[in-house]
Amino acid sequence: MDAGSTTTERVSIVLHSGDMDKLYSALIIGNGALAMGMEASIFFTFWGLQRLRKDDSWAMPPAGLDKGPLSRMNMLGLGKRMMQQRMDNQNVASLERLMADYRELGGRVLACDMTMDIMGVRKEDLREELIDDFAGVGTFIQEARDSAVSLFI
Amino acid sequence: MDAGSTTTERVSIVLHSGDMDKLYSALIIGNGALAMGMEASIFFTFWGLQRLRKDDSWAMPPAGLDKGPLSRMNMLGLGKRMMQQRMDNQNVASLERLMADYRELGGRVLACDMTMDIMGVRKEDLREELIDDFAGVGTFIQEARDSAVSLFI
Amino acid sequence: MDAGSTTTERVSIVLHSGDMDKLYSALIIGNGALAMGMEASIFFTFWGLQRLRKDDSWAMPPAGLDKGPLSRMNMLGLGKRMMQQRMDNQNVASLERLMADYRELGGRVLACDMTMDIMGVRKEDLREELIDDFAGVGTFIQEARDSAVSLFI
Repeated sequence: MDAGSTTTERVSIVLHSGDMDKLYSALIIGNGALAMGMEASIFFTFWGLQRLRKDDSWAMPPAGLDKGPLSRMNMLGLGKRMMQQRMDNQNVASLERLMADYRELGGRVLACDMTMDIMGVRKEDLREELIDDFAGVGTFIQEARDSAVSLFI
Repeated sequence: MDAGSTTTERVSIVLHSGDMDKLYSALIIGNGALAMGMEASIFFTFWGLQRLRKDDSWAMPPAGLDKGPLSRMNMLGLGKRMMQQRMDNQNVASLERLMADYRELGGRVLACDMTMDIMGVRKEDLREELIDDFAGVGTFIQEARDSAVSLFI
Repeated sequence: MDAGSTTTERVSIVLHSGDMDKLYSALIIGNGALAMGMEASIFFTFWGLQRLRKDDSWAMPPAGLDKGPLSRMNMLGLGKRMMQQRMDNQNVASLERLMADYRELGGRVLACDMTMDIMGVRKEDLREELIDDFAGVGTFIQEARDSAVSLFI
């Protein structure tokens, strides 16, 4: 980096997975980057985009968490409810809390428009208040090529 | 980057997963990079390499798609057939089409030779007309260290 | 890179997955980087961290491998035992061997302290002789931003 460089370093993440633990990692990394003065963008694609649906479980108040579809986490031998309990006991921030922090710190949320076409997801199905932009792969690549760190999660 | 730099920026992808949706993402990102004037390389390893087998399902004409082994996509509650139908309805390019475009645009396909040894895959088991080179981890690292974007999918 | 640059290039890997094949890939890439004179760091988080537990299967001598919990590899239609056999037949290094080489070559192993809190894992549950440091997301980002290659596995 030149001493004269004025660009802020950025972390760009493609969140392809819809697994709760992967969403968790994406937000933790995003928030960590923001806390260190970097910029952060998360591109919600494919199964990841499903986590932004209005009817998705983690978006509900805690009481509604059990109503949602089963996460793949269950298949790994650790139930969602147990995981949630552990996180509560350890004062680990909820996904909802992490997302609020992420956005407050200036983190960007991009929804993949191609995924919306394939999956038949309409804008009104999504929590638009969380989304900064609807974008395609070109936007991701443009950002990633200028990022210090790019991850596919 | 120096103003005098003459290297074209590159995207390097390790495709470890054999999931149809991950292959899809790898090719979409690869094609996007190529369309923006970048170079692209995809290293097919482990389960990803299986997608290059002659007897693999997505390599067949559409009619043969149902004959193939079940993708993990099925376990996520969205059937392969339903996915295919959605993609057809939305005029989304098939994997076969995306791969042809990728190669026509100059994208490189590398088959991991160590995976071939471990999995007992012979060259003649693979669709060699799609493969630019058989390579090891050293080749990937050499390319990735010079790439603007490196992803593990 | 300036000709005057004195920093050694680095590969930084987040190992989020606990799948044997993903651990394998992480170590192969790490060892490859080290062999090429680069530095390497692997951050063991979430399911990946479980692989560092004393009671985890791959940490046992070969005879004990079958006693361990089933890997997700089994769900992909390829049994752990069959995989192990294939690897043995091909003289592929075991995970244990790869890890020993990795550390001998100077590769760093970092255990995610936040995962330990969430999962209720104590230091004494882990094979501390394999771990260079217990660290959080800030450490990962600090390393990744200075790395030539960053991967989320």
